[in-house]
Amino acid sequence: MKKYQSYLWLIISILLINSCKEQINENSVPLPSWNESKAKESIINFVNEVTNETNPNFINPADRIATFDNDGTLWSERPVYFQLLFAIDRVKELAPQHPEWKTTQPFKAVIENDMKALAESGEHGLLKLVMATHAGMTTEEFEQIVKDWIATAKHSKTNKLYKEMVFQPMIELLDYLRTNDFKTYIVSGGGIEFMRPWVEEVYGIPPEQVVGSSIKVKFEMTDNGPVLRRLPEIDFIDDKEGKPVGIHKFIGKRPIAAFGNSDGDLQMLQWTAAGDGKRLMVYIHHTDAEREWAYDRKSHIGRLDKGLDEANEKD
Amino acid sequence: MKKYQSYLWLIISILLINSCKEQINENSVPLPSWNESKAKESIINFVNEVTNETNPNFINPADRIATFDNDGTLWSERPVYFQLLFAIDRVKELAPQHPEWKTTQPFKAVIENDMKALAESGEHGLLKLVMATHAGMTTEEFEQIVKDWIATAKHSKTNKLYKEMVFQPMIELLDYLRTNDFKTYIVSGGGIEFMRPWVEEVYGIPPEQVVGSSIKVKFEMTDNGPVLRRLPEIDFIDDKEGKPVGIHKFIGKRPIAAFGNSDGDLQMLQWTAAGDGKRLMVYIHHTDAEREWAYDRKSHIGRLDKGLDEANEKD
Repeated sequence: MKKYQSYLWLIISILLINSCKEQINENSVPLPSWNESKAKESIINFVNEVTNETNPNFINPADRIATFDNDGTLWSERPVYFQLLFAIDRVKELAPQHPEWKTTQPFKAVIENDMKALAESGEHGLLKLVMATHAGMTTEEFEQIVKDWIATAKHSKTNKLYKEMVFQPMIELLDYLRTNDFKTYIVSGGGIEFMRPWVEEVYGIPPEQVVGSSIKVKFEMTDNGPVLRRLPEIDFIDDKEGKPVGIHKFIGKRPIAAFGNSDGDLQMLQWTAAGDGKRLMVYIHHTDAEREWAYDRKSHIGRLDKGLDEANEKD
Repeated sequence: MKKYQSYLWLIISILLINSCKEQINENSVPLPSWNESKAKESIINFVNEVTNETNPNFINPADRIATFDNDGTLWSERPVYFQLLFAIDRVKELAPQHPEWKTTQPFKAVIENDMKALAESGEHGLLKLVMATHAGMTTEEFEQIVKDWIATAKHSKTNKLYKEMVFQPMIELLDYLRTNDFKTYIVSGGGIEFMRPWVEEVYGIPPEQVVGSSIKVKFEMTDNGPVLRRLPEIDFIDDKEGKPVGIHKFIGKRPIAAFGNSDGDLQMLQWTAAGDGKRLMVYIHHTDAEREWAYDRKSHIGRLDKGLDEANEKD
């Protein structure tokens, strides 16, 4: 019986050792979906250095700010920005209340699925589309519209919900950074109020850590109490030179790590790089034609030329 | 000897019990500088309810957003907003480089300490003063200017550093709320970049939790790398109707508790009150002429009329 007991103990300790080993493995191999690459190695080395108190490159948790572009960096942007597809869906839903849209561009193009005419309406047409679909309602009404859309709308090619078309390696990267006491922010040219209702569920990023483009809102006292009304007027464009401006305005600290995928992110990466101490700048380069889309060089959407050249040069 | 030992133990346990009691008292009696009052009781009841998972009014930590006005709520605003005194000090420092100021209002008034003439220059004069002292430099240069001033400048009447003229009961309240997993924000009509360099040290509020008025900034690529240049152009006024707008823009969530001291805070308190679930709205009413200043009703600075009437009515 005594012998039996000691066997039993041995087996239990082996099980315990094994479960510890698994835990150690889980902790010591971050970014499991990433290919073994120089990029992965650089990210892990950077995190190890800035989180190690004995390393000269140690950075306090309070200053571990990491900023991520959204379209093409965290989720897909093909064939066009998903927010444009949201606007198109909205136009179709609202069309019965707007008979005049049948004969007015760019609405006519949307209703007739004429993507060529829509493209020809240019920036001015897109702005009209955005204002007709994003303004007029209260902030609470808009939040509900976005929540309903993101819960149901599907991509025409993949038949997946848009919120499922996010990049698994980037989700792992967000988690990995947060585990190491980074504060992760989205800094996107997309609408701030279009992102806030769903990014916490999808990326684990709370509303107060989202920086984006915005239209103006106005405080109104109604019979049912105060509301914020969305106005058809641009407030801020969080793209290119706007990204460092938005980071400064909303966060008030310079990031130590920044992640983008297009020339619209170049200034954010330059601004990050110019800070004192250890910094990490990463460009997501779309080369996987099988599981996603291979694009970016000379692409209309998410074009990455200047940034890739600068990254190659400074690498 | 045995008897001796047991005496010794007894004394030690009494000491231990006493030290425990002190600890318990420290934890169970929050807001020690506060008078025993209905206000104190309401705050503590509110916090107890929203943090108790079994209470129907429980609120998740992620939604425990508390917003605080700054001038007159967290620090003094007498005889005028301290940021105006900063601007006055800056004008005097910069005057040698601007000989034209000797004959141009409102600068002439500042140089000659003519507060009557300064007041007569009105809002337009104040705006000129702000732009001449807050714009033109980079964001990093401005941060340093503010840091130098706040570390040395003293109030003419109390001879204290301005950053020491904060209200002890409010510091305790900020701590108490954070201990209960609230996220504390400043939402002030003051300049966001004027507050960020020092509020963390003084209030424990990090830069990313400061909402305030701002001027525009512009990204510039210089020979020494990128900078953000401060432009003499208003970007956002975070006062009155602007406060709910600023809260929505920067935080993206409605506060569950809001603290102000003037009619400029009324809309923030209304916006907070209009949310679902348990809410707390508090007005700081300046009545202590001995240790501070008794003012606010009909006061020029920090006037509290509408707000106090509404608070009394809804109490």
